[in-house]
Amino acid sequence: MAQQQSRIITLLTDFGVQDAYAGIMKGVIAGINPRAGIIDLCHMIPPQDVFRGAYLLYTSYRYFPKGTIHVAVIDPGVGSERNILCVECKGYLFLIPDNGLLSFILLKEKTKNIVRVTNTKYFLPEQSATFHGRDIFAPVAAHLSLGILPSRLGEKTDQIHTIDIPNPVFEKERNRIIGNVISIDHFGNIIINITEKHLADLKTTEKDFTISVGTMKITGMVKTYADVKAGMPLALIGSAGFLEISINHGNAQKYFKAEKGQKVCINS
Amino acid sequence: MAQQQSRIITLLTDFGVQDAYAGIMKGVIAGINPRAGIIDLCHMIPPQDVFRGAYLLYTSYRYFPKGTIHVAVIDPGVGSERNILCVECKGYLFLIPDNGLLSFILLKEKTKNIVRVTNTKYFLPEQSATFHGRDIFAPVAAHLSLGILPSRLGEKTDQIHTIDIPNPVFEKERNRIIGNVISIDHFGNIIINITEKHLADLKTTEKDFTISVGTMKITGMVKTYADVKAGMPLALIGSAGFLEISINHGNAQKYFKAEKGQKVCINS
Amino acid sequence: MAQQQSRIITLLTDFGVQDAYAGIMKGVIAGINPRAGIIDLCHMIPPQDVFRGAYLLYTSYRYFPKGTIHVAVIDPGVGSERNILCVECKGYLFLIPDNGLLSFILLKEKTKNIVRVTNTKYFLPEQSATFHGRDIFAPVAAHLSLGILPSRLGEKTDQIHTIDIPNPVFEKERNRIIGNVISIDHFGNIIINITEKHLADLKTTEKDFTISVGTMKITGMVKTYADVKAGMPLALIGSAGFLEISINHGNAQKYFKAEKGQKVCINS
Repeated sequence: MAQQQSRIITLLTDFGVQDAYAGIMKGVIAGINPRAGIIDLCHMIPPQDVFRGAYLLYTSYRYFPKGTIHVAVIDPGVGSERNILCVECKGYLFLIPDNGLLSFILLKEKTKNIVRVTNTKYFLPEQSATFHGRDIFAPVAAHLSLGILPSRLGEKTDQIHTIDIPNPVFEKERNRIIGNVISIDHFGNIIINITEKHLADLKTTEKDFTISVGTMKITGMVKTYADVKAGMPLALIGSAGFLEISINHGNAQKYFKAEKGQKVCINS
Repeated sequence: MAQQQSRIITLLTDFGVQDAYAGIMKGVIAGINPRAGIIDLCHMIPPQDVFRGAYLLYTSYRYFPKGTIHVAVIDPGVGSERNILCVECKGYLFLIPDNGLLSFILLKEKTKNIVRVTNTKYFLPEQSATFHGRDIFAPVAAHLSLGILPSRLGEKTDQIHTIDIPNPVFEKERNRIIGNVISIDHFGNIIINITEKHLADLKTTEKDFTISVGTMKITGMVKTYADVKAGMPLALIGSAGFLEISINHGNAQKYFKAEKGQKVCINS
Repeated sequence: MAQQQSRIITLLTDFGVQDAYAGIMKGVIAGINPRAGIIDLCHMIPPQDVFRGAYLLYTSYRYFPKGTIHVAVIDPGVGSERNILCVECKGYLFLIPDNGLLSFILLKEKTKNIVRVTNTKYFLPEQSATFHGRDIFAPVAAHLSLGILPSRLGEKTDQIHTIDIPNPVFEKERNRIIGNVISIDHFGNIIINITEKHLADLKTTEKDFTISVGTMKITGMVKTYADVKAGMPLALIGSAGFLEISINHGNAQKYFKAEKGQKVCINS
């Protein structure tokens, strides 16, 4: 753990930017720990899209200093009996509703401690039934940033919900991998749940891959965008370690009309 | 007042996110007080929408530590003879153009001191006629965050403009309340100017309410979203203390085709 | 240069707000310099739009305290042989891909030192081919904010790319100026590459100007929006020092159907 005075709190929500919900959370945090460094991960998760929240959390969490408190409030069950968890994993703390937001991370990593957050001492005095980001997550995160131990927040548990993350399928006899689109970013890059490790299963070289998205195909992989001409499609291993389909200086999502969940086939 | 070194400045504007206007304000603040904590409340107020600014300020201001300087630059009269005010209220400072941005707050609270901000000593040396956020609000807020007294900014006044905030009407003989939509949030929640106090006027229990929005009706109120099935409409008291109409896991604004200002009727 | 402990890092990117790319950069910075003050200039530069990045950088940079490190990652050539530069100019440091992002500033100012950033000691240990914002720009900026000298980053160079910034043309015999739309902001204000200095060439007074945008005309210039009635078009010198066409309480871009690059003619 980093020294406590420099603990950072990140915020990942589906609150959007047209209201003041994220700002209010920061106000609550600042009222408890004026020195907390607060960093926005993203507030544009589509409403209730736990899968997307889990994906962004996975691609982001490890680039922060150890000890960072990652707060994710994509919380369609707010006000219900769903638990709020404080999870220790890889030297980070995650404060999340128990709805699967760690699912991508838990494909690779193990949790160390899981606590059900129930100690109202660390909540705002009054809790609404619809904005636990303000009333519970923000004050609890602020107290954690001051150094209180997760064990003070409630009882330990060994239960944590996960959601299904699609796994690519390697069809050995046909020497091909069937993957799925797991993210489409702002640039229109199409991100697929296939890593270099998966590709190593194929009996071929990178140059010989044929990647099929819908009715369209890309042949071969490159190292970076500039390896093809502007406007041309390409495939590469992107910054999150996944196979990405892009257009140099363009928008692959528009070109391929790709959708999240869509199948992508890598043939050799 | 909180100790001066930890004073926070919040920013609420209609500047949007496609330009650097909000960032520039932060640069000016940092040049005067590098230690000022700056928190974005919201920059997506629709251009010139003072009503919406007033609403967000009301729902946000009290979640910040006392002493916070709330700067709101929704300022269609920029460059005109309109005043800029520094208002003390409930232990907070508000730095606003005098166009009604405190109207929601002043329904409930009283101002303590109002100062017309005229002392150019605290402005940038040159002031444009169109970007007082940069040239006046930012530097004045930064100086306030360093601890200068509001009285240094100009002369006291007891005048402050307000705009009309619609009041719900209780029709005793018909035992019903007519309210208005005052906000629609990012999730499509429809927020109405009716509080629990208003509802107490109705001779009925919460279960018996019929809430009419256009041609559609909701019967009864619940405590939280999860009290109805996913996709079903509901009414509850939301996190700002107002009646809200929502769809569990859905978007009530799209479903009810609600618009700001629209009448909503609560019958018993 | 400002004292090193208070150095600010600004971020200007085309990363948008739907992913966590900007947040990840901040995590990397915080891991190296937890005290760095990070300010978002803008993340909504249209993808690969170096011209717009250069414009926003020009209108913003000088409102930050001296010593500020301006990081601009509009980087269509990421992963290619394009250089990354650390440029000293007017007491600021600019960390940019060498693609013209300083073009607007260099119309007026001279660079002091230019360094090609090649010293991998200040990069993340592994560098992707597609996200140098995270792997190079963020860690290098963080090290600069800790006070390392730009000369530690690589070799000096005197080469820096610029892009064409259109120059207004003064046609003396016809006593008119032909300019171009260089920016349209969130409010729909149309910003033109004509300054007061250019206007001084015209043999006339401000009142006599006729400004033609497409088939529409505005006569005369005013000082501020409120000089015309709500809904009326106007021309003034805006906060960036350029001629702007606006609608008081309205959106000039929609009214004039203006587009970036479009010609605007000022006649007397």
